[in-house]
Amino acid sequence: MSTNQGAIANYRPTIALAMGDPAGISPELAAKLLALEELRAAAKIVVFGDRRILDEGAKIAGLTLDITVVKPGEKFDATARPVLIDLGNLAPSAVKRGEATPEGGAFALDNFRRALTMAKAGDADAVCFTPFNKKAMRYGYPGYDDEIRFICDVLDFHGHCREFNVLGNVWNARVTSHIPLSEVAAAITGEGIVSEMGLTDQCLREAGIVNPRIAVAALNPHAGDGGNFGREEIEVIEPAVKAGIARGYNAFGPFPADTVYGRALRGDFDAVLTMYHDQGQIAMKLIGFDRGVTLMGGLPFPVCTPAHGTAYEIAGQGIANIGATREAVLLAARMAARNHAAKTAAN
Amino acid sequence: MSTNQGAIANYRPTIALAMGDPAGISPELAAKLLALEELRAAAKIVVFGDRRILDEGAKIAGLTLDITVVKPGEKFDATARPVLIDLGNLAPSAVKRGEATPEGGAFALDNFRRALTMAKAGDADAVCFTPFNKKAMRYGYPGYDDEIRFICDVLDFHGHCREFNVLGNVWNARVTSHIPLSEVAAAITGEGIVSEMGLTDQCLREAGIVNPRIAVAALNPHAGDGGNFGREEIEVIEPAVKAGIARGYNAFGPFPADTVYGRALRGDFDAVLTMYHDQGQIAMKLIGFDRGVTLMGGLPFPVCTPAHGTAYEIAGQGIANIGATREAVLLAARMAARNHAAKTAAN
Repeated sequence: MSTNQGAIANYRPTIALAMGDPAGISPELAAKLLALEELRAAAKIVVFGDRRILDEGAKIAGLTLDITVVKPGEKFDATARPVLIDLGNLAPSAVKRGEATPEGGAFALDNFRRALTMAKAGDADAVCFTPFNKKAMRYGYPGYDDEIRFICDVLDFHGHCREFNVLGNVWNARVTSHIPLSEVAAAITGEGIVSEMGLTDQCLREAGIVNPRIAVAALNPHAGDGGNFGREEIEVIEPAVKAGIARGYNAFGPFPADTVYGRALRGDFDAVLTMYHDQGQIAMKLIGFDRGVTLMGGLPFPVCTPAHGTAYEIAGQGIANIGATREAVLLAARMAARNHAAKTAAN
Repeated sequence: MSTNQGAIANYRPTIALAMGDPAGISPELAAKLLALEELRAAAKIVVFGDRRILDEGAKIAGLTLDITVVKPGEKFDATARPVLIDLGNLAPSAVKRGEATPEGGAFALDNFRRALTMAKAGDADAVCFTPFNKKAMRYGYPGYDDEIRFICDVLDFHGHCREFNVLGNVWNARVTSHIPLSEVAAAITGEGIVSEMGLTDQCLREAGIVNPRIAVAALNPHAGDGGNFGREEIEVIEPAVKAGIARGYNAFGPFPADTVYGRALRGDFDAVLTMYHDQGQIAMKLIGFDRGVTLMGGLPFPVCTPAHGTAYEIAGQGIANIGATREAVLLAARMAARNHAAKTAAN
């Protein structure tokens, strides 16, 4: 343990940062991020994008960039200052502010693919990205349901991975995600719950949370009210919580979904494992949309991004809040450092 | 319109108040409520319960009651001060603080039944109650699923009524309520949505909100994402919103459930019509559980109660917050006065 802590303290991970959709606040967020001393100290940052787009973001943010710019394939060292790998892949004249375009989507996809590939090759410890626009992504990649699917395609990864939302001290995990509500109940299985519980436990530990307390949400109103409004709590979820506890997870529940977040906010739990997408998203977005981080966990390396979107309506005004992006990079850095320490300890 | 407004301003409605579960904070809430000058001015209040239990509530709250106490059947006038109809129906020695008991349930059921019966007879304009404990209610009334069912049984009412949650300027309505999540999608129909929209419109108007703006929530994550995660938005909900608009309702949507409450809070809408129980409850409880009011709307008269429960864990300490109960009585008084004006105008 003391060895690990020392390794974490000493290791400064490399984060590959993909510039996101150019028509929203992503360019100014990238520029603001690169100017934050706290992030520059926490990680070596390597940005994939176009210098002209990043320069424009810096101009909007009112910042002078202190970075090294290199061409693709060129050697670089990101120790002293962040490095931009200038792909020259988007002319500013092609950007229509506040509009999802094929050019914008192609730019973000290219940046993201290269950042993931760098991490897959072992040259970066984590990947972050500024917000994407799904419509724009689909112009260049029609099967773009969500980030998870794209990442798995690029990495050729077939393991168990999942999206998490992190907001301050509260984590949100899901058993099901982007499926119709009509299919949720049938998709909830004991094995599925225990499996997601395990991934949740693992990701929180990677983030440095000791023995994470996981609250499991019920599926039905009033947690089924003793079987009156559904029997999944009795037949599936409660046995799964017990099975999780038997495996060593610090699990609790099932709890009614409409009060479990209040308890997590008060500090009773570190994570809430929800049964379906909106159960967690309604709560997390109300608690504090702007500060939230989305983590793709379970992959060979952490992938983090702010939970908010491209904010087309305020693009170009220089008022975009860097808070969530800052948290995303810090979480990625924390997890990457801990993963590195674990690998070092294992070797 | 000016005639109506005059009638509303002049009419001071009678509210029948049922004392709720005696083992929690209900007795002290009843005592605090009766001491609030604002509520005494807004309505003539007639309480159903036991003098000894109310006295104990006053003692806990540190209040001296200024009320008239009468026996059942005795004549009374609640104009100058609230009246307690002392049913002598629960000895304080039978109350186990913090415990749901058959005696406590029988007490609350008796009080509630009498309050409803008084309003049904036309002798009260609205009914309010301090929190019930469902487990205790079921000892005396095994089919006690929720308040709506009990009320309809007592009133022999077979019309369209529904539970609403009101929190500040945001109303929450539902198309489905206490059913298993697995049955929700099939229970969502265009007629059902338009019907609930109509009841929502009616109740908000009764509460004095002019041309209420109703946001309709989607069923699926990301509102179905254009059909990728479910087609109910395209096939059922969107056509229902259009049908509602054609009927004159000020309806909008469908909107993704995880952002619609943020918009309502910012003042874009007066009400959110949700597709299922937890969709609204997760949001409403996070927004401000303590201040919320539950309204049973669509009945011959409004029935209101604080949205919070019996709070067994803080019973007897005198710290129970009267805020939601105060809001419940004020909403009932406002709706009752407006209903009276509408009836007067019609005659």
